[in-house]
Amino acid sequence: MTDHTVKSYDRDLESLGRRISEMGGVAEKMLAEAMDALSNLDVELAKRVVASDARLDTLQREIEESAVMTIARRQPLAIDLRECIAAIRISGDIERIGDLAKNIAKRTLKIASEARLPRAIVGLKSMHEIAATQLKDALDAYALRDEERARTVWMNDADLDALEDSVFRDLLTFMMEDPRNISFCTHLLFCSKNLERIGDHTTNIAETVVYLVTGESMPLERPKARPGVLGAGGDASHE
Amino acid sequence: MTDHTVKSYDRDLESLGRRISEMGGVAEKMLAEAMDALSNLDVELAKRVVASDARLDTLQREIEESAVMTIARRQPLAIDLRECIAAIRISGDIERIGDLAKNIAKRTLKIASEARLPRAIVGLKSMHEIAATQLKDALDAYALRDEERARTVWMNDADLDALEDSVFRDLLTFMMEDPRNISFCTHLLFCSKNLERIGDHTTNIAETVVYLVTGESMPLERPKARPGVLGAGGDASHE
Repeated sequence: MTDHTVKSYDRDLESLGRRISEMGGVAEKMLAEAMDALSNLDVELAKRVVASDARLDTLQREIEESAVMTIARRQPLAIDLRECIAAIRISGDIERIGDLAKNIAKRTLKIASEARLPRAIVGLKSMHEIAATQLKDALDAYALRDEERARTVWMNDADLDALEDSVFRDLLTFMMEDPRNISFCTHLLFCSKNLERIGDHTTNIAETVVYLVTGESMPLERPKARPGVLGAGGDASHE
Repeated sequence: MTDHTVKSYDRDLESLGRRISEMGGVAEKMLAEAMDALSNLDVELAKRVVASDARLDTLQREIEESAVMTIARRQPLAIDLRECIAAIRISGDIERIGDLAKNIAKRTLKIASEARLPRAIVGLKSMHEIAATQLKDALDAYALRDEERARTVWMNDADLDALEDSVFRDLLTFMMEDPRNISFCTHLLFCSKNLERIGDHTTNIAETVVYLVTGESMPLERPKARPGVLGAGGDASHE
């Protein structure tokens, strides 16, 4: 490669990283606002969350196209090939995190007019705190190429799963106490599942960071799912 | 390219197509068996479905790696580049369909010992019939590069969504009728959501076939989701 080629190649990779960073910021904001909308049954905020998802879709498509074209044009090897593959994987996971936040916002639209049960949302807020911290750490790990931080995210995902089990039982109890809670709590069950799946995708991002830095895949003994190689498909075994 | 290169290139693409065809067969079998297990609360069959998911994960990783290496080595253009991208996308969607079938099997393990309500499963069976037909048609459309069949799959996904809405309402009614149905029906709610998401991934496959054949993305006005460019991330906007 000439110096010129190398530089334009570096620019390709920089541009991928910059757009992933933008995607991460949008997804974090969507998640925080979706939970605010749910807590306050704020229909207007929920609608804004739904609308902001389009930006993530656009960015993901751009990143995928750029990464594939970079692979095709530059024939990168080793670390540079991993940079491109990591960009495809991580943009896919962030796009899905945005979808899941959007789903929480859509649930808010559905239940805004129903009987409220504030104590039913307490457990979801705790799940959100963990999910938001994990997401921030995973995105930081990617930005800093910090393998150790990524491994910590990977280890901590089990906390969110345990909390989801507990939220599931609580919501079932509320439904059994009073049939008027059934519809409201059913929608919260799906919100809780969405938060847990956000945790899965966050863990996927952490796995991708380890792969990016070390070239190795994470072991299969992940608390609940196994790592994929490329796509956003490497999650959801836990549902 | 020399003749030799062209031939080995064709072999790469053939090998991708063969493994996707194997993945499709495994996913179809998993879905059928997961629904059999659920209908009969057959724990042994459910366990076999869970175990068979590993084969899909392995195949997906192989396909992704092969496709990326083919792009990096051969620098394909136009239709051949689309073949590689389509292989990555479709293997991701089939892998997730397998995950979702596995989730249905896992729910069977959870509810096998609970009070049964056979009429609650009727709607799920109807959803499964549509989902299985759609999946078969989408896989056939890929095997035959049949754009028209793919577009039909894309159009028909709305049927599955409408049925899911109706199943959701029925399950809520059963829960309100008798609190002893709540736990059982809650698990069925998640199964119904899994079937609907299988429909989403099937529609993604259909979109990829259209992209593969024509080079164009499907319009954004899809009944409920927008097409992605590459990864399995192009679904789930409907949850």
